[in-house]
Amino acid sequence: MTLTMYERIGHEGRRPSPFSWRIRYALAHKGVEPQFRHVRFADVETIRALSGQQFVPIVTDGDRVIHDSWNIACYLEGRFPDRPSLFDGDGERAVTRLVNHWADQTLGTAVRRLIASDFVFCLDPEDRAYYRRSREATFGCTLEEYCADRRRWLSEFAAVTAPLEKTLTEQPYIAGGAPGYADYVVFSVFQYARLGCPDEFLAEDTALRRWRDGLVQAFDGLGDRYPGYPA
Amino acid sequence: MTLTMYERIGHEGRRPSPFSWRIRYALAHKGVEPQFRHVRFADVETIRALSGQQFVPIVTDGDRVIHDSWNIACYLEGRFPDRPSLFDGDGERAVTRLVNHWADQTLGTAVRRLIASDFVFCLDPEDRAYYRRSREATFGCTLEEYCADRRRWLSEFAAVTAPLEKTLTEQPYIAGGAPGYADYVVFSVFQYARLGCPDEFLAEDTALRRWRDGLVQAFDGLGDRYPGYPA
Repeated sequence: MTLTMYERIGHEGRRPSPFSWRIRYALAHKGVEPQFRHVRFADVETIRALSGQQFVPIVTDGDRVIHDSWNIACYLEGRFPDRPSLFDGDGERAVTRLVNHWADQTLGTAVRRLIASDFVFCLDPEDRAYYRRSREATFGCTLEEYCADRRRWLSEFAAVTAPLEKTLTEQPYIAGGAPGYADYVVFSVFQYARLGCPDEFLAEDTALRRWRDGLVQAFDGLGDRYPGYPA
Repeated sequence: MTLTMYERIGHEGRRPSPFSWRIRYALAHKGVEPQFRHVRFADVETIRALSGQQFVPIVTDGDRVIHDSWNIACYLEGRFPDRPSLFDGDGERAVTRLVNHWADQTLGTAVRRLIASDFVFCLDPEDRAYYRRSREATFGCTLEEYCADRRRWLSEFAAVTAPLEKTLTEQPYIAGGAPGYADYVVFSVFQYARLGCPDEFLAEDTALRRWRDGLVQAFDGLGDRYPGYPA
């Protein structure tokens, strides 16, 4: 039985979505190669018809349709119990849930403040108006206004990532000696930053930079498999 | 062999230190009852003579002197392997390390912005000048100035705690079905907030409030064993 993963795709094959990256890494960790199906960023109808909701990735496994990246990770863990674990037991899984919410709500927001006005150019030209309209409605301002106070958002990013830097000076991965789903979730937000804007936010001589660059290279350079930010 | 735990003590027996609370809960979780020795807040010399550094808690076990709350928790886990685990394996321990740094650097800072000007009154009158002087030097402003923009810091606190609230609506504890060291570390910062100022920052109908109040009551009401904020 082959799994199928639906993911959003951007301009000329770009893959900036953090939610897809964490599942791509989880699949690679498990050694599972799914079929990939692409949907355009603004194509909410296709996604909704498949799963009854509008977020990707979605994984199908025969008749099963699994959505929400956390649910997919847990599904993969149960579906392939003999492959390398994403969580070293239920305790690690539970604590990783907090790291997941932190990565999306705190780290993800800090990154979005730095990249939202650039990110739109990762999308197909036909999808950019949708992104701008939907995000500007959420933010209550233009993308450019949302990112305008760059000094403040760089300082916020530094504060938000400080606990990560400290942890990664003490251990090679968030999950310890080898990467686990906690690493992939957090890394996926740095992929979103890395592929979603032209700037580098991580200084060269940091533990965080070494960790991120190591994960980009993992699984035969999975993190660099698709085009980077549009030149 | 009896363990001895050195901790800072405040005004009329108060115990506002988050670093002590996480170790008190870790000891209770392990069912270990140490001797307690108290040092005054400003008594840096006693602490330095014992351990070569100035932070508490410190635990001694025969000739061994262990300091830094993380090191103490790991020591207890190895010293009492047959007692209930603080970490469900090395993976949970590793991910908890990130939660620990987040609790201290992000959550702890958000709480400190709300309580620093009240906190000084938890200390013995003779220790208050030390606290004020050392903190004001660190902050670069008076305690009152540090906390002055309350609306901003309440909003920051809400943003910082959002991932916790989301996690605790999905599972009873950070560590899953039962509390682990990840819970005690995070809880200890809420004890610091709860005992270090007269205000309640957690709304009644939240998962976070239920979780915190449950942990206050755990181990025969350990969280309420000492006096609250000075009336």
